[in-house]
Amino acid sequence: MKKHIYIYSPSSAVRDKAAFKRGVKRLRALGHEVEIDEAALATHQRFAGDDATRVAAISRAAASGADVALISRGGYGLTRILDAIPYKAVAKAIHDGTEFVGLSDFTAFQNALLAKTGSVTWAGPAVGEDFGAEGGADDIMEACFDDLLGGQGEGTGWRMPARDVDGLAPLRGIHGAVLWGGNLCVLTSLLGTPYFPSIDKGVLFLEDVNEHPYRVERMLDQLRQAGVLARQKAVILGHFTGIRKVSHDRGFSMKTVAARLRELIKPPVLTGLPFGHVPTKVLLPVGAKVEVAADGRDVFMVWGHRHAH
Amino acid sequence: MKKHIYIYSPSSAVRDKAAFKRGVKRLRALGHEVEIDEAALATHQRFAGDDATRVAAISRAAASGADVALISRGGYGLTRILDAIPYKAVAKAIHDGTEFVGLSDFTAFQNALLAKTGSVTWAGPAVGEDFGAEGGADDIMEACFDDLLGGQGEGTGWRMPARDVDGLAPLRGIHGAVLWGGNLCVLTSLLGTPYFPSIDKGVLFLEDVNEHPYRVERMLDQLRQAGVLARQKAVILGHFTGIRKVSHDRGFSMKTVAARLRELIKPPVLTGLPFGHVPTKVLLPVGAKVEVAADGRDVFMVWGHRHAH
Repeated sequence: MKKHIYIYSPSSAVRDKAAFKRGVKRLRALGHEVEIDEAALATHQRFAGDDATRVAAISRAAASGADVALISRGGYGLTRILDAIPYKAVAKAIHDGTEFVGLSDFTAFQNALLAKTGSVTWAGPAVGEDFGAEGGADDIMEACFDDLLGGQGEGTGWRMPARDVDGLAPLRGIHGAVLWGGNLCVLTSLLGTPYFPSIDKGVLFLEDVNEHPYRVERMLDQLRQAGVLARQKAVILGHFTGIRKVSHDRGFSMKTVAARLRELIKPPVLTGLPFGHVPTKVLLPVGAKVEVAADGRDVFMVWGHRHAH
Repeated sequence: MKKHIYIYSPSSAVRDKAAFKRGVKRLRALGHEVEIDEAALATHQRFAGDDATRVAAISRAAASGADVALISRGGYGLTRILDAIPYKAVAKAIHDGTEFVGLSDFTAFQNALLAKTGSVTWAGPAVGEDFGAEGGADDIMEACFDDLLGGQGEGTGWRMPARDVDGLAPLRGIHGAVLWGGNLCVLTSLLGTPYFPSIDKGVLFLEDVNEHPYRVERMLDQLRQAGVLARQKAVILGHFTGIRKVSHDRGFSMKTVAARLRELIKPPVLTGLPFGHVPTKVLLPVGAKVEVAADGRDVFMVWGHRHAH
């Protein structure tokens, strides 16, 4: 199943060029035709080229006719250029069969595009950190990516940590809910702007990295106080990694943050979603309608059959 | 000029008890009657007592009849309890002559109170870090605090860094503009919620600590993309401290962040405000109407005579 994969850099400069090369090599070893954007390795300050360069790279990705437009990496850079992204051209490319895949800073692109056009993109891997991972790419991630390429990915399932199931009623009846979200910090940085999607009765998934639980809590509180969480059918937490506990936390942790969230909002809070800054990640269609069901520790999310190209 | 000062802890637990004691001692040495809230040194997880305890402490501060209600320290805790703060009681206390003073996490309290009641509070020192500073309290901070106590503080002035004056036209004609803002991160965490003040034609001042310039920029972009900055008569930057540069910044810095901001928004961006996580800080009336004028490097902000108690 040879596919055309277009690699571009909308965010931070690629610093780990060895990982980038490994990622490209891996994608080629999987049999794909890999096209690398001319500015994929550009550098301007922290960024993969200046703002105009990165906007042009997004345009080229949209015009590439590729099956998948895949980010080289996340980092920082997309919120700066939200006013300049060619949303209509990206939406047209998606309509014509290009799937946009990425994560982290890419959350800004995905949710802004959803707000502006309703188009579906995929929360998923990046070239360097995932396909170029030093120990080799993760099997589950690659299987999910392969499902996307083959038009076979119809859903995902996972087991919640036992401690989070206590008191959680079996969950039924979430149908046709829009899946959205991604990186909590990046998503929250859209709140109050025209780039924050207005999704009612959706399913909001969140992950983050290198954010202390007090910052995670403050961001969740902001979404809650803005009325966003209460309007959802479910909130799903992925991995929150890179947390450095300090002695004066004195029991304050992601565990207490999640427990408090559960007390404060009405929608069920599901946990354990295999997504975030971790090797084993599923691909998730941001903007697509999903069904969600949970029974005990088992959660299923189904987005149905999507068109294969 | 003996005044009654009420010290309470609405945010993080007081960890540096020596600094707290030095601060109390200093305020007493200045001749004041210092009253310490019963929960000022309480601890629950990271917090100065659980949420109910800190809300009750705010109520006691409001009921204290003190001339000044002063926070022991900032940290984190106020955004958690924004739904529970007794705004009306605080507004009444302010009307009856109690000035609420603080900074950092206190920004959430100040701007939420402004949004809910229009009451004026003071961006200014905390007990521990300022009055209890190891080398002694800062002279200018104490003089400004003294001005507040005596009802003498009618404004402030400072010199901008020479590099930021280039191309800045002399600034006149800002009258009756509401001064608001404080800590950028805390203020931004109110955006989209009912606690974010809706201020048109105001003067927005901002400072932050331990935030990399890319995060500062992302927050400024959020305020800009939300339309907040364009609606102001001026944006004033105080100190941004504790920044750890990294090698891959490659020239990206607070300097480039401020320069870009100046290009992107119409209101003038003034810099060098002596406020933030620095010893030498002025006191600023959040919610009061101010006049601002700038000529070359010199900036003046006047809020006129406020009632002395």
